[in-house]
Amino acid sequence: MAAPQLTEIDHVAIAVRDLDGAVAWYQDMFGATVAHREVVERDGVEEALLQVADSYVQLLTPVRDDSTVAKWLEKNGEGIHHVGYRVADVAATLSSFLEHGGRAIDAAPRPGSRGTTVAFLHPKGAFGTLIELVEE
Amino acid sequence: MAAPQLTEIDHVAIAVRDLDGAVAWYQDMFGATVAHREVVERDGVEEALLQVADSYVQLLTPVRDDSTVAKWLEKNGEGIHHVGYRVADVAATLSSFLEHGGRAIDAAPRPGSRGTTVAFLHPKGAFGTLIELVEE
Repeated sequence: MAAPQLTEIDHVAIAVRDLDGAVAWYQDMFGATVAHREVVERDGVEEALLQVADSYVQLLTPVRDDSTVAKWLEKNGEGIHHVGYRVADVAATLSSFLEHGGRAIDAAPRPGSRGTTVAFLHPKGAFGTLIELVEE
Repeated sequence: MAAPQLTEIDHVAIAVRDLDGAVAWYQDMFGATVAHREVVERDGVEEALLQVADSYVQLLTPVRDDSTVAKWLEKNGEGIHHVGYRVADVAATLSSFLEHGGRAIDAAPRPGSRGTTVAFLHPKGAFGTLIELVEE
């Protein structure tokens, strides 16, 4: 693929157990403020987005025990969960990725938070990195 | 702290075993290209920076067995290693962070790659996240 597909680090997602505590910590330590907060029922998470330039720190906590983030926290403890890259056209980038032999979690784009369209790629085959493609 | 300190996601660092393989993968899958590549002797790593807008994906591999990244890979396998935030004045942000009860790995700012000045904060007390402050 010749043309660059990743146009911005959309967000770095940090899985935490105490969302309010994490929000307060980033505020106290770095003056970071919440630009958006949302419960994403489909994924069983609540997220708080801290604005950093044109990107976000996404603080992420499970709201259900069967959420994948709940299971991830149980296994790994708190920490960096995934990275989201902004793309112009998530369907096109996902198609190209699959055509190039990439492995995805989402077979097709789906709704994300704050009105975005997203697709998660599989960490296996991506150097252990859970990557989310985000179209605003 | 009232004023926002984090001015940009400077980079997301991915620890990999095969740097050339990872560079080729990001090129093939997403058209990402290397803006800078450097061996950082002090840290025992080689890094390749892929430009994404005003940020970087930092692919990181150990060049010595006693590198902290070598030990990290042995324990965790490949994956997201840390996140770097750009700040205007790393000494000022580090001082403020310590005054607010934060725990740092680097007691004082030190040279990073590509001529930057950096300080690493400790993941304990930072929701399991290894944070690097980066002053360009």
